Amino acid sequence: MTSSLPTPAHPASPPGQSSPLGLHRVLDPTGVLPQAAWRLDPSPAIAPDEIRVRVDRLNLDAASYRQLRETYAGDPDKIRAAVLDIIATRGKMQNPVTGSGGMLTGTVEEVGPHSPLGLHPGQRIATLVSLTLTPLAITDALKRWDALSEQIPCEGHAILFARSIAAVLPDDLPIPLALAVMDVCGAPALTSRVVKEGAVVVIIGAAGKSGSLSAAAAQRAGASRVIGVVPTEAEAELLRHLPTTPESPLVDEIVVADARDPVTLAAKVEQAGGPADVTVVCVDATGCEGGAILSTKQGGTVIFFSMATSFSAAALGAEGLAADVTMLVGNGYVPGHAEFALDLLRTTPPVRSLFERRVHQ
Amino acid sequence: MTSSLPTPAHPASPPGQSSPLGLHRVLDPTGVLPQAAWRLDPSPAIAPDEIRVRVDRLNLDAASYRQLRETYAGDPDKIRAAVLDIIATRGKMQNPVTGSGGMLTGTVEEVGPHSPLGLHPGQRIATLVSLTLTPLAITDALKRWDALSEQIPCEGHAILFARSIAAVLPDDLPIPLALAVMDVCGAPALTSRVVKEGAVVVIIGAAGKSGSLSAAAAQRAGASRVIGVVPTEAEAELLRHLPTTPESPLVDEIVVADARDPVTLAAKVEQAGGPADVTVVCVDATGCEGGAILSTKQGGTVIFFSMATSFSAAALGAEGLAADVTMLVGNGYVPGHAEFALDLLRTTPPVRSLFERRVHQ
Repeated sequence: MTSSLPTPAHPASPPGQSSPLGLHRVLDPTGVLPQAAWRLDPSPAIAPDEIRVRVDRLNLDAASYRQLRETYAGDPDKIRAAVLDIIATRGKMQNPVTGSGGMLTGTVEEVGPHSPLGLHPGQRIATLVSLTLTPLAITDALKRWDALSEQIPCEGHAILFARSIAAVLPDDLPIPLALAVMDVCGAPALTSRVVKEGAVVVIIGAAGKSGSLSAAAAQRAGASRVIGVVPTEAEAELLRHLPTTPESPLVDEIVVADARDPVTLAAKVEQAGGPADVTVVCVDATGCEGGAILSTKQGGTVIFFSMATSFSAAALGAEGLAADVTMLVGNGYVPGHAEFALDLLRTTPPVRSLFERRVHQ
Repeated sequence: MTSSLPTPAHPASPPGQSSPLGLHRVLDPTGVLPQAAWRLDPSPAIAPDEIRVRVDRLNLDAASYRQLRETYAGDPDKIRAAVLDIIATRGKMQNPVTGSGGMLTGTVEEVGPHSPLGLHPGQRIATLVSLTLTPLAITDALKRWDALSEQIPCEGHAILFARSIAAVLPDDLPIPLALAVMDVCGAPALTSRVVKEGAVVVIIGAAGKSGSLSAAAAQRAGASRVIGVVPTEAEAELLRHLPTTPESPLVDEIVVADARDPVTLAAKVEQAGGPADVTVVCVDATGCEGGAILSTKQGGTVIFFSMATSFSAAALGAEGLAADVTMLVGNGYVPGHAEFALDLLRTTPPVRSLFERRVHQ
């Protein structure tokens, strides 16, 4: 179960009370959000709206792990010592060079009486907010970690605030598979909100993790046609040989095109039944803004999920094309997003097949 | 009158026919959009859906003019020669170093029988698409330009495609004032679309050009409360002394806060009657994403109009705050945007007063 927010949370709190955003855990500098703080207070005693989690694994952000490995030339003792030092100094695992964190898994240990997250002691969870804002303490010196990958088996505790996001790990799926789904679960949830019955939907990057889930979400939302764009014939073959039925395809049409070439992309999308009412950008490549805009009808919507999206390229691109399209910044948080995505995986054989190929279990 | 698009335009065209996007004018490299092209064909003969404009003034993008002035150490002859060379070589005024263009004013000279822009010969217009994609030829060697500013009086012609945007310059307003309004006219148009009757609206940067127009648009759309955020007491004083009436204020509440400090901003906005259903970001400063998100209700909308917006800061910020907010990339094009903004200026004395202070006429 994903946490939900029954009432809009008040951002600030009177002194001495806990803040739903964790402001009371910020030690230095005071008054900033936990993510912006240099140092958090990871004390195990919880406020009435907090939760303490017994941590069993950290999953460092890839960029953070790479920076540590390169800085210490792959020496496991030095990498371990560096991570321990960061956590001890900052009260959270936020690499000071990359600024990035990661996520954790663990077991709920204590739930404050006013926690709105709906969690219970004993539940195995993953955090869906970043380690950069999660108070954390480590008690086993990371002695079980070989420092050869970003996966850190460990012992310690972490604190969830009232306005945190955590998802209960399902019993019926391998954990790496569940975590891979949760990592991109905002995309299908927002796609499902935006796509209306009968819509033509273009998914750019349809054979990827967020793309395949978004395609499944569009089909479930009643799209009349889902056009999957992939960059290579090999990816197209992958889509063609998924375990689908003619009655319930993942995508209705496959387009092989370079999404960075707006003119060619739009022409091929049109041949495949476009332009789209909704275009979803799920590829982590720069320069896809114009193609996405040009593949979308006047009055349609583009959802950008790629972190490689340029705000100004999108804004100026639409203006330069006289394109009256609504452009959404893909928000990674939609209430219920993790469960929705896990359910899509369970009930959509082609999505599960794609994930199983892409995730090392 | 602003051009509108009666039918969705087909992006590509059969060979030999004109394209609404101007693909037939692209000489090098072929197949790219006019903005991405190195060289356009500025021939004066028009296709059936094109318009030729007799140009009287170019208004270079500020960054482009600065680069030219610095490169040629302010020497007017060299700056003039450089601009002439760019236009002659590229068939458009796109500074190859900055990549930016600007806009132009002129008089409609010939209208193709299939042009959908609704313009007539003799009308004085401004282009609202960039010079970076507008075929242009200069015939007077720029001899009237002193090269001391980015305003270039000149003679020549330019071509508008079917899918261009141009606005007729109004008779009743000084041209610099009209151009200043047109420059930011996307913001009030999109604000007007998004704000519903009774909404609480926060305008970050309410004393600026796009901010004041957006505040007026929010009031006209029936907002129950418009909270104007400004960075300094001086800007607050400016807002307080505008020619408004108690019955029709531009903003209902004024908040003085640093929009880059999310915690303080959100707390002050809440004191002023927030959080917002709709927050509009109109300040050209980096780091305003978190404050805008935190000042907005769960289920609300943030519209980012600042080109300083970071896509990833918005996406990751919302996720880190567990904020279920819709985030829109401020599209500079909404059909009818120029007329709507000019009408707001004419009918809202405080907006006109602010513009007259900020525009050198």
